[in-house]
Amino acid sequence: MVEYVGVERVRELVGQLGPARFMRELAAEIEADFGRWESFDKSARHAVHSPVGVIELMPISDGRLYSFKYVNGHPSNTAAGLLTVTAFGVLAEVATGYPLLLAELTLTTALRTAAMSALAARRMARPDSRCMALIGNGAQSEFQAIAFHDQLGIRELRLFDVDAGATAKLQRNLAGMDLEGLTVIACRSTAEAVSGADIVTTVTADKRNATILTAGMVEAGMHLNGVGGDCPGKTELDREILLRPDTRVVVEYAPQSRIEGEVQQVPADFPVIEFSELVAGRATARRSDAEVTLFDSVGFALEDFSALRYLHRLNGAQPGPRGGIDLIPELANPKDLYGLLRPGLAVRKVAA
Amino acid sequence: MVEYVGVERVRELVGQLGPARFMRELAAEIEADFGRWESFDKSARHAVHSPVGVIELMPISDGRLYSFKYVNGHPSNTAAGLLTVTAFGVLAEVATGYPLLLAELTLTTALRTAAMSALAARRMARPDSRCMALIGNGAQSEFQAIAFHDQLGIRELRLFDVDAGATAKLQRNLAGMDLEGLTVIACRSTAEAVSGADIVTTVTADKRNATILTAGMVEAGMHLNGVGGDCPGKTELDREILLRPDTRVVVEYAPQSRIEGEVQQVPADFPVIEFSELVAGRATARRSDAEVTLFDSVGFALEDFSALRYLHRLNGAQPGPRGGIDLIPELANPKDLYGLLRPGLAVRKVAA
Repeated sequence: MVEYVGVERVRELVGQLGPARFMRELAAEIEADFGRWESFDKSARHAVHSPVGVIELMPISDGRLYSFKYVNGHPSNTAAGLLTVTAFGVLAEVATGYPLLLAELTLTTALRTAAMSALAARRMARPDSRCMALIGNGAQSEFQAIAFHDQLGIRELRLFDVDAGATAKLQRNLAGMDLEGLTVIACRSTAEAVSGADIVTTVTADKRNATILTAGMVEAGMHLNGVGGDCPGKTELDREILLRPDTRVVVEYAPQSRIEGEVQQVPADFPVIEFSELVAGRATARRSDAEVTLFDSVGFALEDFSALRYLHRLNGAQPGPRGGIDLIPELANPKDLYGLLRPGLAVRKVAA
Repeated sequence: MVEYVGVERVRELVGQLGPARFMRELAAEIEADFGRWESFDKSARHAVHSPVGVIELMPISDGRLYSFKYVNGHPSNTAAGLLTVTAFGVLAEVATGYPLLLAELTLTTALRTAAMSALAARRMARPDSRCMALIGNGAQSEFQAIAFHDQLGIRELRLFDVDAGATAKLQRNLAGMDLEGLTVIACRSTAEAVSGADIVTTVTADKRNATILTAGMVEAGMHLNGVGGDCPGKTELDREILLRPDTRVVVEYAPQSRIEGEVQQVPADFPVIEFSELVAGRATARRSDAEVTLFDSVGFALEDFSALRYLHRLNGAQPGPRGGIDLIPELANPKDLYGLLRPGLAVRKVAA
């Protein structure tokens, strides 16, 4: 039996810890893994593009564990009542090649993306940041709000989405959470939401070069958390923002980000800092309160590796039913695979 | 719920049809897909190597469906009671990016590999071939024997393995199948098994450049079905066999085979025929009864694509319980992913 953590079990695990603590612990796991960046066998993800979306595989290994994530991105899905992003992944043992865990990663990707955003912002935003604009109020927005409230001390949230229903949904959900000292303001435009904010998080989903944030909106000292631009031809920021002389850009894994991130808009020699350099202390993102910092987030396989390992540990440690599926045969004689087909052989069934 | 076909369900489906018919039907599916070779978005598989094995991802898409397979290769696993090769895969819809099916592919890979071998041999071996040497009597050997008996009319099988226990296991399994008119002979060496055979199938598993078949063993008119050499540094055939002026080499997908197949031993401009050229009628493998033909099989993603689609159809059509797993969330409002975490929300559980 291969350990299985489906949507129901992730709901239960996140419910037991609360999403803020889940993301805080996950951010610590991700940070520790970025701290041993050189241990990982890294590659840019494998993407198959179609006119309406992308399907990607994101493999990585540290020589002891291997993981991959399957993830899609289909902005037009929501119109059909489906999710823009769905995902699942596997954690496997390098020594045997056997999978250890199959897990849902749709909910988990939203959690790990926000955990990574908060982790980066803690090293990039001004320490006195209290006000965040949240542009794009869809599936990932609550997670960004919770993580920045918990990990950055954000106390004022300014919301904007072209879909007013999405903003209303986010407001309702935030009201139900009773986050300590948080003021939530729905704005009428991106410009209104961004004006005077310390941090600007963009998490929109259009599959095109959109300009969610124009150069004129960006103020000295801001930290930009650019989450929605994550594949070729899909960006959110005005190119001029990148080209400001006081803008400092941090990416996860440069070879992938130059293909997929906001930095696809600038030449290949445009200076970027890899996040692992911040963790290793070899680079500093923000050198003054006046600089503009941009975390050009696209999502890297390492973050899913950390998340799968965290889920694996949590699933074993937390109470509740643990499922398994018969994804891999168990044989008395491994050279006798055909033996599985002999009539009358008893094989263990799926256990939920 | 995502459709799930585990080991138990594949056992049942193969049991209902019988392995010979399963592989015959699967070979027809694979052939049809090779017949529309240009429709596929193809790439060499993604491999992560360690000193003891390899873990691979094999994605492919025809623009309507997408599939990938996860597969490992760890020759030392058998000593620990584990399988050398385990696999699973997913079939997904390109239009939405949603997975349609998660399936075990360990048993299925053995079936599709033998189906592909037989399919290639039907276009490459002499039509009067009746005697096959089967070198390597491990997990995949029964499937090769059944497919070649059924699809090629093989009536004499000569077995050899360095592990006499593996040969005895294969003999026992073959005896239990009652294959029409089949004579099975256990040989004391590869040379003895190969001498006078029409077809030689090598399906050994050492992760090194082994020379299972030397040039001196190869006779005029033979068809070689080389299955076991399938990753860099893992080959089975003497390089001299490839270099014989009368040897004609067919591969699945040249960019991958030149990295992983027997043809990794020869320069990049060594002439090979892609199997799709045979299906399209643009090339002929065997031009005379005296030529030596080699199917340098490494396994290509298209074969798993065909297998997953075939399993998907069979699972819907054949009687028996159909399982599903909660791998992807189902939401009333796709922009409200956070809603999954609201206490008290009812979510459908894993169904087996």
